[in-house]
Amino acid sequence: MEDEKQFHPTKPIRCIIKLGGSAITCKNEFETISKEKLETVSQQLRQAMMVSTTSCGKVLGMDWSNRPGVAGTSCVVDDFCRLPALDFSRFIVVHGAGSFGHFQASKSGVHKGGLNEPLVKAGFVATRISVTSLNQDIVRALAREGVPSIGMSPFACGWVTCEKNIASADVSMVAKAIDSGFVPVLHGDAVLDATQGCTILSGDVIIRHLTEHLKPEFVVFLTDVSGVYDRPPTEPNAVLLREIEVHEDGSWSVLKPTLENLHVEMTVAAHDTTGGMETKISEAAMIAKLGIDVYIVEAATSHSLRALSGELKDNIPEDWLGTVIRFQR
Amino acid sequence: MEDEKQFHPTKPIRCIIKLGGSAITCKNEFETISKEKLETVSQQLRQAMMVSTTSCGKVLGMDWSNRPGVAGTSCVVDDFCRLPALDFSRFIVVHGAGSFGHFQASKSGVHKGGLNEPLVKAGFVATRISVTSLNQDIVRALAREGVPSIGMSPFACGWVTCEKNIASADVSMVAKAIDSGFVPVLHGDAVLDATQGCTILSGDVIIRHLTEHLKPEFVVFLTDVSGVYDRPPTEPNAVLLREIEVHEDGSWSVLKPTLENLHVEMTVAAHDTTGGMETKISEAAMIAKLGIDVYIVEAATSHSLRALSGELKDNIPEDWLGTVIRFQR
Repeated sequence: MEDEKQFHPTKPIRCIIKLGGSAITCKNEFETISKEKLETVSQQLRQAMMVSTTSCGKVLGMDWSNRPGVAGTSCVVDDFCRLPALDFSRFIVVHGAGSFGHFQASKSGVHKGGLNEPLVKAGFVATRISVTSLNQDIVRALAREGVPSIGMSPFACGWVTCEKNIASADVSMVAKAIDSGFVPVLHGDAVLDATQGCTILSGDVIIRHLTEHLKPEFVVFLTDVSGVYDRPPTEPNAVLLREIEVHEDGSWSVLKPTLENLHVEMTVAAHDTTGGMETKISEAAMIAKLGIDVYIVEAATSHSLRALSGELKDNIPEDWLGTVIRFQR
Repeated sequence: MEDEKQFHPTKPIRCIIKLGGSAITCKNEFETISKEKLETVSQQLRQAMMVSTTSCGKVLGMDWSNRPGVAGTSCVVDDFCRLPALDFSRFIVVHGAGSFGHFQASKSGVHKGGLNEPLVKAGFVATRISVTSLNQDIVRALAREGVPSIGMSPFACGWVTCEKNIASADVSMVAKAIDSGFVPVLHGDAVLDATQGCTILSGDVIIRHLTEHLKPEFVVFLTDVSGVYDRPPTEPNAVLLREIEVHEDGSWSVLKPTLENLHVEMTVAAHDTTGGMETKISEAAMIAKLGIDVYIVEAATSHSLRALSGELKDNIPEDWLGTVIRFQR
């Protein structure tokens, strides 16, 4: 199904980040971004990406556009001229929708297809408007923190599905953008589907596809909780699973903590659109099976910064809060 | 240079529209849209595209997102359910930047390339943020008027240049979007360039490329003046050129009016980045040479509506204000 002739980046990708919709939007407020969290996430990305530190400690913003309520442009041409070439390690960001897009998609049933129906077609347009507006806000937040971010919508990239699975998704342009020194920012999107006309391509499926083709050193899932728990983290006595090992056959087991009565089902659940914890482990397990470590951690915390920096590769410190999912060693 | 294996739309494209930046933005106000003009342009596009009229006269908006200063969402699911399949003729919109993007591009010199320089890289990011935010506003304005518009950035589409000319620009995804019943909305963009790293791909070059590959019935340039004049239209005695004929060798002559002392140079000027009138005629002449009529007309007027509707094909009425550029008959 897949095009084989794809352009690959000349140097390895360091990290692919899944920025969970719930981590940067207010879940129960329609199309509302958690501005402070997004700002912290952007700062942490910048810190994690910086290879050489710039001579001046100043962050050189790359968003020179008008912002509601902010006077003037923040363009600082003189500061840039004095800078040596910036050296960033290679990151890709994929974000979910959170409180963007879901309303439009579910009202119209975009995921079920049927573009001949006016409601589905309108919902497709409305969903894309909503998710691309979130994408624009995330790209701008990253740019303001000096991350050379570039929005890339899967729809515009020509990614199409067939029976809801990726049928064609050339990663060449993503690779070229990285090779040119940019940080591609992709997102869950409404896309064309060969069998049912259209569907929703989730951020998790995008992550898996990019990971398979670009083989990053590690993957970080930034969420709104500390990691994967044995039951919903709001329940009393919920236990954070700190280390999960994935086996050759795709099954997985919890290495840490070594409790006997963990509630987690020891099977990899089928992909479901609701994106529950089973799905999250399942997606992460498929990535880990490629030999790529996955860290699931709360966004905008000291723990997420450590995960993004790559310092957990050989040793997970006792005071690190999060879940690592690895292929059995 | 060009990929030959491209997906083509199953039915002919009716019209490609160049929405001039100056027609829908306030030229001298940084990143400011002429909201009323954009609204009228969107209404006219909808009128021109409608093949079947819907049973209810109501416009069914497809932008269901929050808008600053507008309470609630305009989602009208019930209205859509009662509608028969919408039948639109096939349009593509390409817009310029106007007061968006130019500041960022010129401050940093994106058009001159050199992505290794921090200023150019930052300017590239800043330019894309600015032009994609205009794109988003245009897509939303069209969607609010019931046009199933889909933003497609040339950068994300994988379009790259070589020595500033298009080196690779697959139109398959644009064609697929049209086949699925959408109106692709493209724009002048910062793109990667094989020789100099990056450059600016102008809306005019995009129009020419799309026209060559998709062969629309006609092309309309919506501008902020009535058409092409023999001298800057602000000068006294400027004469509107109503009909220009393009010859086999690429040269052109004015058929109407038949004045003797027209100031217009009778040569096709080389493409210049400033986008003067010479460039405009030159670009239009290259399209006309393909046998495709080009109408240059003031946006949001009764004249633009007539041009968009395609009623000028066989006969240009005396009271129509604008310029038609045609291949010699």
